[in-house]
Amino acid sequence: MTSPDPRPHVIIVGGGFGGLWATRALAGSNVRITLIDRRNHHLFQPLLYQVATAGLSSPDIAAPLRHILRNQRNVEVRLGEVVGIDTHARTVSLADGDAMSYDYLLLASGATHAYFGHDEWSADAPGLKTLDDALAIRRRLLLAFERAEACDDPAERDAWLNFAVVGGGPTGVELAGTLAEIARHTLTREFRNIDPSHARVRLIEAGPRVLASFPESLSEKARRQLQKLGVEVVTGTPVNAIDANGYTLGDTFVPSRTVLWAAGVAASPLGALLGVPRDRAGRVPVEADLSVPGHPEIFVAGDLASVQQDGKPVPGVAPAAKQMGAHVAAAIKARLAGKPTPTFRYRDFGNLATIGRMAAVVDLHGFKISGLLAWWFWLAAHVFFLIGFRNRLIVLLNWAWSYWSYQRHARIILGRDSPRGAVSPRE
Amino acid sequence: MTSPDPRPHVIIVGGGFGGLWATRALAGSNVRITLIDRRNHHLFQPLLYQVATAGLSSPDIAAPLRHILRNQRNVEVRLGEVVGIDTHARTVSLADGDAMSYDYLLLASGATHAYFGHDEWSADAPGLKTLDDALAIRRRLLLAFERAEACDDPAERDAWLNFAVVGGGPTGVELAGTLAEIARHTLTREFRNIDPSHARVRLIEAGPRVLASFPESLSEKARRQLQKLGVEVVTGTPVNAIDANGYTLGDTFVPSRTVLWAAGVAASPLGALLGVPRDRAGRVPVEADLSVPGHPEIFVAGDLASVQQDGKPVPGVAPAAKQMGAHVAAAIKARLAGKPTPTFRYRDFGNLATIGRMAAVVDLHGFKISGLLAWWFWLAAHVFFLIGFRNRLIVLLNWAWSYWSYQRHARIILGRDSPRGAVSPRE
Repeated sequence: MTSPDPRPHVIIVGGGFGGLWATRALAGSNVRITLIDRRNHHLFQPLLYQVATAGLSSPDIAAPLRHILRNQRNVEVRLGEVVGIDTHARTVSLADGDAMSYDYLLLASGATHAYFGHDEWSADAPGLKTLDDALAIRRRLLLAFERAEACDDPAERDAWLNFAVVGGGPTGVELAGTLAEIARHTLTREFRNIDPSHARVRLIEAGPRVLASFPESLSEKARRQLQKLGVEVVTGTPVNAIDANGYTLGDTFVPSRTVLWAAGVAASPLGALLGVPRDRAGRVPVEADLSVPGHPEIFVAGDLASVQQDGKPVPGVAPAAKQMGAHVAAAIKARLAGKPTPTFRYRDFGNLATIGRMAAVVDLHGFKISGLLAWWFWLAAHVFFLIGFRNRLIVLLNWAWSYWSYQRHARIILGRDSPRGAVSPRE
Repeated sequence: MTSPDPRPHVIIVGGGFGGLWATRALAGSNVRITLIDRRNHHLFQPLLYQVATAGLSSPDIAAPLRHILRNQRNVEVRLGEVVGIDTHARTVSLADGDAMSYDYLLLASGATHAYFGHDEWSADAPGLKTLDDALAIRRRLLLAFERAEACDDPAERDAWLNFAVVGGGPTGVELAGTLAEIARHTLTREFRNIDPSHARVRLIEAGPRVLASFPESLSEKARRQLQKLGVEVVTGTPVNAIDANGYTLGDTFVPSRTVLWAAGVAASPLGALLGVPRDRAGRVPVEADLSVPGHPEIFVAGDLASVQQDGKPVPGVAPAAKQMGAHVAAAIKARLAGKPTPTFRYRDFGNLATIGRMAAVVDLHGFKISGLLAWWFWLAAHVFFLIGFRNRLIVLLNWAWSYWSYQRHARIILGRDSPRGAVSPRE
């Protein structure tokens, strides 16, 4: 990357949907691209909850960025952590000391989970954004049943069998629904001292309803499907405290050894490196062409971008990130051709959420379906969009298998307990 | 486990081939069994090198012990670490404070890798015995190419591309052969600043030949097949030092950032808890019925047992462990029936080792095959013996896929670097 090269240098930070789609859309262009990511893989985040609940292995939903892009010769993939951006010198610096100058920069480093100023909860209520997170959660879930099985004290055993998921959005709904399925079906007959189906799975939403981004009728359908799966749905009550022994719901302390956090997201801290104003969630408000105000050579895409359309914010979902990535590629091409940059327009194809075995809700611009049909629709859409043919095949097979057998093949606990039972996961 | 139960209590420590086969063979017996393992899964160790080299995922070669034994009602599976054995009080105590008394005890905790008094090498030359080990090695291998790609200093780049496997037994041969395949084929086109096929893969054996447990003619065949795969085979020279920067071969220091250890095994430290004499490798010499001298109620099976037959030691291989486990079950049944215990006899079906893509050696009592045919034989045997139908199917598919495409689907780096680049793996 130090060799002199006449082509304009495009640095893309983040190999998620935004960054990867922008990279691919620049395949034919006379630029050299450096794609920087802290991880060596693109992650299909919509199926992350399946890794957390032992239904899929990490490699089923992730592919090495190098492999995805091996035939795109104008791209260099760089494993590294961005620690500085100098918008005047137009350089990006990495944790390993390297620095690179750019002609165009796309920041697409996504979002992380947020604890609303309660970061002390993170150790006892892990969130789900990365494969590491998913494996930490998987380890916790599986160990909870093991601890309960080995435990002689009834109160402690109940605490191990008391699961809470905080946050009634799509991730919380997926986790709670699948967790209930595991307790009720997957673990049947495997334990001798406990009955896993007596495990209590609670989904806690501070707002009035689950899946608030869906029409009310589908939120209600989702609640009923969750209850049918054995999930206790609590709405309109906030969680006010979380520690290693349990959580406080409203004013009541509930003993629980397993609390999962699906309540909030915050934009990637890399946004702060731009030194421009950000919104309350840490997102960067961008121009109509997704460039940063005052910096036509810098773009932001995906969950890190704050984009308003028709008075509503564009949602932080995969399709929006892909569309933004492709748009940034088009905007860079326009700049290179001396043309005006186009205005970004989000095309909303609808909203899906899965709830558990055979249960989902789908909202296609007012055309609403739920239950089994919605679940098949959701399954088809997600498997279709998975990166890489092989993954699709294996994922389908794993699904067919666990669907038919109720089994989840990835129930392997690895890693050791670190002090105070915090987890150091491996798969 | 505290409830009074008239049935004799059999404690089996270790869910590997020895312990699991003993447990299954006691299915019909009027005993209650507690199977104790530090891990929640049975591991198909012969394919562990495939996880280390990113060809398979952990769940492909491991299955939860609870799941395997869910329908055997006289078994209780206990996740726990044995820390004490009182052979007079006949109790086993666990790290979590629990203690259990036994009528019969089977110790089948296997082996770990040994550094011949050089434990300080372990950080820089990881061995391969558990899934955690495999994922640590996978992470090291994949990161080495990433570091080389990002590195501007030629000498340092070469050190990152210089791989050494110490130990020319089956594991060392498998690792070296597969590593060469990855460098020469899997990573083609994926890097921009390095050519992975220039990576140097060295297999170092202090003895005169690789695969010393095979006939000389097959050792020679294996050496030639390794060289064809691009492995540099060094025999008759010991490694005298290993640190983070390289290793000393004879008297020459070789800069290398990736050294893998496949040179020695030692029996599980649990053998010491019995307070009986052990051999130099830490194994427990047993009676003809596999019981411990002076303790007819205690048995040892698998890699922890030192068994002589026709003046030769029974090898530490999976078939021997399975046969010992089944024999111990028979011996316990004989004791319960007041009959004399049978004498263990190891039935040697032959010796297989795989070398890499399309290369293996097979020795069936003098009937020797090598190359592609041997490889298919090896593949069929290993897939057939995998626990669980689903795993077999998925493993076969993954194999077919990586065989056809040269790709390895599990090339996902997880976890973070701990200080000095030591690894904290996750998959």
